[in-house]
Amino acid sequence: MIFPVVLCGGSGTRLWPASRKGYPKQFSRLLGEESLYQASLRRLSGEGFAEPVVLTGSDFRFIAAEQLSQVGIETARILLEPSARNTGPAILCAAIALEDTPDALMLVAPSDHVINDDDAFRAAVMAGAVAARDGKLVTFGIRPDRPETGYGYLELAVATDFAPQAHDLVRFVEKPSEAAAAEMLSTGRFLWNAGIFLFRVRDIIAAFETHAPGLIGPCRRAMSEGREDLMFFRLGEDAFAEADDISIDYAVMEHHDALAVVPFDGGWNDLGAWDAVWRETGPDANGVATSGTVLALDCENSYLRSEDGGPRLVGVGLDNIVAIAMKDAVLVVPLDQAQRVKEAVAALKTIGAPEATDFQRFYRPWGWYETLSLGTRFQVKRIMVKQGAQLSLQSHHHRAEHWVVVEGTATVTVGDKVTLLSENQSVYIPLGAVHRLANPGKVDLHLIEVQSGAYLGEDDIVRYEDIYARVTDKA
Amino acid sequence: MIFPVVLCGGSGTRLWPASRKGYPKQFSRLLGEESLYQASLRRLSGEGFAEPVVLTGSDFRFIAAEQLSQVGIETARILLEPSARNTGPAILCAAIALEDTPDALMLVAPSDHVINDDDAFRAAVMAGAVAARDGKLVTFGIRPDRPETGYGYLELAVATDFAPQAHDLVRFVEKPSEAAAAEMLSTGRFLWNAGIFLFRVRDIIAAFETHAPGLIGPCRRAMSEGREDLMFFRLGEDAFAEADDISIDYAVMEHHDALAVVPFDGGWNDLGAWDAVWRETGPDANGVATSGTVLALDCENSYLRSEDGGPRLVGVGLDNIVAIAMKDAVLVVPLDQAQRVKEAVAALKTIGAPEATDFQRFYRPWGWYETLSLGTRFQVKRIMVKQGAQLSLQSHHHRAEHWVVVEGTATVTVGDKVTLLSENQSVYIPLGAVHRLANPGKVDLHLIEVQSGAYLGEDDIVRYEDIYARVTDKA
Repeated sequence: MIFPVVLCGGSGTRLWPASRKGYPKQFSRLLGEESLYQASLRRLSGEGFAEPVVLTGSDFRFIAAEQLSQVGIETARILLEPSARNTGPAILCAAIALEDTPDALMLVAPSDHVINDDDAFRAAVMAGAVAARDGKLVTFGIRPDRPETGYGYLELAVATDFAPQAHDLVRFVEKPSEAAAAEMLSTGRFLWNAGIFLFRVRDIIAAFETHAPGLIGPCRRAMSEGREDLMFFRLGEDAFAEADDISIDYAVMEHHDALAVVPFDGGWNDLGAWDAVWRETGPDANGVATSGTVLALDCENSYLRSEDGGPRLVGVGLDNIVAIAMKDAVLVVPLDQAQRVKEAVAALKTIGAPEATDFQRFYRPWGWYETLSLGTRFQVKRIMVKQGAQLSLQSHHHRAEHWVVVEGTATVTVGDKVTLLSENQSVYIPLGAVHRLANPGKVDLHLIEVQSGAYLGEDDIVRYEDIYARVTDKA
Repeated sequence: MIFPVVLCGGSGTRLWPASRKGYPKQFSRLLGEESLYQASLRRLSGEGFAEPVVLTGSDFRFIAAEQLSQVGIETARILLEPSARNTGPAILCAAIALEDTPDALMLVAPSDHVINDDDAFRAAVMAGAVAARDGKLVTFGIRPDRPETGYGYLELAVATDFAPQAHDLVRFVEKPSEAAAAEMLSTGRFLWNAGIFLFRVRDIIAAFETHAPGLIGPCRRAMSEGREDLMFFRLGEDAFAEADDISIDYAVMEHHDALAVVPFDGGWNDLGAWDAVWRETGPDANGVATSGTVLALDCENSYLRSEDGGPRLVGVGLDNIVAIAMKDAVLVVPLDQAQRVKEAVAALKTIGAPEATDFQRFYRPWGWYETLSLGTRFQVKRIMVKQGAQLSLQSHHHRAEHWVVVEGTATVTVGDKVTLLSENQSVYIPLGAVHRLANPGKVDLHLIEVQSGAYLGEDDIVRYEDIYARVTDKA
């Protein structure tokens, strides 16, 4: 059995505004109907695979759980990293979580990459499994198609024909200069290091003990001091914070001898910036790729994208342009400068722009909400409550609320009174009233909330009870 | 006395998405706090000027009237053109409307141009008045600063020093080739024809009678068959439709002998496309101009604009780009191809995109509304009702409505019942109920309307009474 270990703690900004700290790219539907995270999970499910171990941050736990259930995976271990400590501590904790099956294999994979040929990938994994059962730490090497300076490389002894079989790894090569990358590309013996690994639980723990013994104590304590929270497992915060912030490459791989590499040529893309999304979307003969309600007139070498429900985006006569339109934020940048988006996000943070980090739609365990209109003394929100879900029993000091049900059925508690509302019915929640909203139905509930008050921040909330264990949360 | 005659029937698309058929550029606040139309009216008010005559289309009558009152002009004649017939018939109708003061002067000006130096413009007008009182038809000639091929030119006998005085006009020159434009620019004897004219009422009517006698009958009948409608005068539809679609230049000016030109060097811009708005906004040392919530990082020669309440717009590393962001539509086009926007609007019309023509905020005689969210069976609108204004007494066949007051006070009639609602109160209007909304207060009323129903089109309305005389209107 192979346990997929899916890493999705990242919160990259290079795909802003579609990817933000509050909703990172692995959860976005950047290509097609599934998120990258869902595609990763699906790829690593089915015959030969056990239930996945997912590593993510506390902020993303409900998104991670919901997207899991959307792809039909009902059981999974979701470990919550209390702080960002890179891949070393995360993978070691996952191994410790699997320690009762020491001979089982772990397939560690990022959740924000694209792999096109799932069958070829499974064949590579099966080839790697032979070497892993032999005690090797196995990496997967991607066929490079350009002298990329943004990735590390894996060196083989001889050029490969990309048949699915394990080779000995000569060495890891750090991110090269452009000249060095071109030189490596010409030899056929160097592959990209995609950060995908396969090994036995016992072997990777032993390797950490040998090469990074300082991580063992903090990670074991993070597991023993951790606690169950609904369907999640929260790693011990203090212990995990003591672990070094280090990648598995630096902590283990670069020091280890028994390494193997399985070449892979089935299409891989890390979607590291918008030019990568453009490439992966499949530009037409003029180099134009679009997504959403977009009109591209006489454009070349450009990527135009309007996110779900975003504005109509019109490009005319563009060349070498990325334009991403969302309701609350629009980005325009030359395609060949797409990696500069992170500078823009940093500048937005400096001026305190909420769009730098917050997503327009806020995901909660019970569903989501988004702001439709914000005035000085009022706010209009659209709220979706999943079937069977309920919000906390709560009250507000500074705002009253009107709720109008527009789809589905709501059970509304105000004080002692419980009312069942259906489409086109409404209720008023006076300032200070203790209230709760639930969806007792079999379809999603949509309602419009109109808030009135002098202060409308999300932190004006007093929680009395919450089925999602958030009574002490601030928002 | 000089009667300003302000032409604002145009509905240009070259400044899409800020200017649309439903809300053309003269009414937009493209530069600063006033619309171009308001700036035109203000420029032509005060000492020496009589009440203005405004020519516009029926669709824009309430915007035109409201923007007039916002600049403090309480009396004006607003003539509504039933169809678009270019400047010839419009100006002739205005002259007929002023026929009872045959010796009065008419200053005819477009409403969608910018003039920077109002004092210099008044001085030019006063200089032109001398020639006009002498029986001349006076035009104003703009100092050209580039070999523009998009305008007609006025030829003088000798180069001018731009002192405010009338010169004889040698001839009109049609839009030239680039070579011809450069040649004219070098002589100092050619000025741009800005479409601004000054003449006596009797003289222009006589000139039409001489050069374009076919327009006289239709325009006289359009005036005699026209009717008062609130503060507007609707020209007779059938008669006006018979008038040729022709500019005053072709109909009269190019055939007339007694012509004079007053040179003008006080800054003029017709904002014919986004590059003109960029130029007029005043680009910085890098050639960058912005408006609204915009972040321009390391950009050159670009115009970035986010309309009121639009998305945050971020440009990184751009050169030669115009980006205009609104809630419902985003445009990206190279600055030097800005005139191609009309191609995009045409293409949007072809695919039936409502953003091609409709503005996100719909102006009505009582205020405005905009859609915040549109689902399959619900719609959320924000509605503003001006102080003292009221909507028609109406009912809907296919939708029920919830209204929540968020600012101000509302008088709501539902059936026989009249209720006064203040901030944070709400009311329900059942499907089929006859209802009316009014603002009895001294401040604007803002409310959120949540509509539910199977059909949510604006044309599902039955009007019983309307103080704005729209009982037979369809929306």
